Amino acid sequence: MSLRFSELGARQTESDIARLMTIAIERPELLSLAAGFTDNETLPLEVVSKISGEIGAENDRGALQYGANQGRADLRALLTTRLKQQDDAPNSVDYDPTLSLITNGSQQALYLAIQTLCDPGDIVLVEQPTYFVFLEMLRGLDVKAVPMPMLENGDVDAQGVKAQLEGLETDGSIHRVKAVYLVSYYANPSGHTLSAEAKNGVVEALGRFAGRIAVIEDAAYRELFFEQAPKAKSCLVAGVQFGVPVFYTTTLTKSFATGLKTGYGYCSHPEWLKRMLAIKGQQDFGSNHYAQAIFARAIGEGAFDAHLEKIRVSYQSKADALNAVLEDGLKGLGWTWEQPQGGLYIWAEAQADLETGFESALQELCLDEGVIYVPGELCDAHRSIKNRVRLSYGVLSVDALREAGKRFSRAAARVAATVTHESFASD
Amino acid sequence: MSLRFSELGARQTESDIARLMTIAIERPELLSLAAGFTDNETLPLEVVSKISGEIGAENDRGALQYGANQGRADLRALLTTRLKQQDDAPNSVDYDPTLSLITNGSQQALYLAIQTLCDPGDIVLVEQPTYFVFLEMLRGLDVKAVPMPMLENGDVDAQGVKAQLEGLETDGSIHRVKAVYLVSYYANPSGHTLSAEAKNGVVEALGRFAGRIAVIEDAAYRELFFEQAPKAKSCLVAGVQFGVPVFYTTTLTKSFATGLKTGYGYCSHPEWLKRMLAIKGQQDFGSNHYAQAIFARAIGEGAFDAHLEKIRVSYQSKADALNAVLEDGLKGLGWTWEQPQGGLYIWAEAQADLETGFESALQELCLDEGVIYVPGELCDAHRSIKNRVRLSYGVLSVDALREAGKRFSRAAARVAATVTHESFASD
Repeated sequence: MSLRFSELGARQTESDIARLMTIAIERPELLSLAAGFTDNETLPLEVVSKISGEIGAENDRGALQYGANQGRADLRALLTTRLKQQDDAPNSVDYDPTLSLITNGSQQALYLAIQTLCDPGDIVLVEQPTYFVFLEMLRGLDVKAVPMPMLENGDVDAQGVKAQLEGLETDGSIHRVKAVYLVSYYANPSGHTLSAEAKNGVVEALGRFAGRIAVIEDAAYRELFFEQAPKAKSCLVAGVQFGVPVFYTTTLTKSFATGLKTGYGYCSHPEWLKRMLAIKGQQDFGSNHYAQAIFARAIGEGAFDAHLEKIRVSYQSKADALNAVLEDGLKGLGWTWEQPQGGLYIWAEAQADLETGFESALQELCLDEGVIYVPGELCDAHRSIKNRVRLSYGVLSVDALREAGKRFSRAAARVAATVTHESFASD
Repeated sequence: MSLRFSELGARQTESDIARLMTIAIERPELLSLAAGFTDNETLPLEVVSKISGEIGAENDRGALQYGANQGRADLRALLTTRLKQQDDAPNSVDYDPTLSLITNGSQQALYLAIQTLCDPGDIVLVEQPTYFVFLEMLRGLDVKAVPMPMLENGDVDAQGVKAQLEGLETDGSIHRVKAVYLVSYYANPSGHTLSAEAKNGVVEALGRFAGRIAVIEDAAYRELFFEQAPKAKSCLVAGVQFGVPVFYTTTLTKSFATGLKTGYGYCSHPEWLKRMLAIKGQQDFGSNHYAQAIFARAIGEGAFDAHLEKIRVSYQSKADALNAVLEDGLKGLGWTWEQPQGGLYIWAEAQADLETGFESALQELCLDEGVIYVPGELCDAHRSIKNRVRLSYGVLSVDALREAGKRFSRAAARVAATVTHESFASD
């Protein structure tokens, strides 16, 4: 049958994630350092069952009814207050719950943001590296991801962005630039938290365009710090200062339970929000309302914060375990990385000539050893990052992480041996 | 701030639903015959709390973890078996769970179907009347909805569709026609169930196009029959016979709990499904997994079917109550409608010159009496249905329905009196 698909849809058939998931499904014996899943053992199963029991006992029938397209008002109020407290900038942003919405995870919030702003051929500036599912989404909507210049320390190079924007003006393509996308806290994949200077610098550089270019801030991991809450405020604050529209997104899934898939967005630009809501009305006219009712209670009753305290300790011990085994196994081979201060990822760099892609010797040997990772090139709009891997300590237990780290290190050692051998052979 | 939006997005700002919801929110004293919400009293609050308790007691941690993009395998298997039983056509369609997916309600399934098939300017053939949120979605994606010819009895006129398709060939626009959309059981808004002849006739008419034009079947209300299960099989059966790709969608929300927003789709065309899954991967990479776990248990344990038995009786008594009060109040004024055999709607027709739109005297007097309805023109791609209303008995109790029906009848009587008065005046 020769069904004729959307021309745009034709670009939506290849998926790096699908490829990774296929490997994982076909080889269930593999230990996954690839999946960005959350820790299984600490999932708040008892809390959720308890709250579900309360909803039943209190005959809160509304929890099982349709909710509003924009999301539950009580949940939006709680999350907007939470954002205000985190930003600690009471006299700047409005932090008005009517400017917020609830989505099917932050992924849908990002999708709506791009759908409302971009036509095929438009440009979004991204970090290098950046969240690879976002890059896939841009490809699917035929929007061009253009990497911003970065500093050695992992920050966006705000001065460089200023020059980049001038270049786009000169070459006449600035009108296609619709937004800058920032993964601002314990980023996926780099683990890096953007400094206040970098964020302010980027927003200031956009200020020159009189609000025509927006910032989309993905703060999915903001609450998953280990010891100290991150200091940089959201871009909403600089957005007010420099007249730049900002859509700030975060998610409750990473901080609580991925199975309850609930995201949050706050948009400083009412017309932009209105358009996102119009499309959401067409996509699903409201996210799962029962999950929202559970979250409203979990946050209101303190169970959400209690859970966060618990998983911060858990993720830190997992990060430390993977870090320690990699210190033993990889440092001698010339690999480097920053020890995580939050989030779910180690973003490790091999020597410059070692490739990590799907067809690489490292990938092949990792499969042979029984471990999978995310090749760094997936996280780069230009696919030019060849010698990086994203290793997640999210889903595996401490013991499994130690084993996975050993397997990865053995594969890396075998690659190094091959390289050395080949070097000798070619001498 | 002069943010520049997507050109497509510019068409996504007006929403009929938003307008209706704004009225409902601003005037909470109104009784709503407009909302397609489900019955509050019969929502399975106890069942859901009990299942949530079981998930906790059995330490089923996976329920709170991310699920697969395509949806839980056990739930897809259960729902595909259910579809096979309903169709009772074991030697025809594959009924292969790998061809199914789980979505955020059937709305997302419809959205994905259109996104994968259609570019701006493409055409989808629809019934007249049809589901008004679907029309909004098409407008949002700049896809043209073209009504099919209909028979007096509410069926699609398959012979007429054949002629219509020939006309589209003659005028050269057939290549823009991507799909036929059918709301096949106890339809929103008409309440009509398509006959087997009508369905087969339409699919046969498409057969001539060698699989280039698909059928999207929206079976949201299939299980909400009152006394007898509907006899017509899904279009999947005729699709196999005539070589026409069919995407069949349904939802668990109407049959169980709207707050758990979970839809199901079955696609006879693997490549089409693959593309829908690619976009779903970008929109949310999987629907709420906890809700899916609840549904898998509710269906597996029989609670789902037990609940259906209960709400069929409840909706029938509500339909009867509204029907009876309207018989008293409206029949004498020349209104007609079919008594519902399932679903949530009465689709009532006034005398030809009585208008029902947002600015009509009927709407104004209904607001004055304290009741709201859905104007029929919203459900028509050409907005040419001027004298119809969709009245839902979904959300209100029997007592409230009686009162709402009386209010509506009073408003209709006042309109009739005005019209008569004006007729006299202009004599």
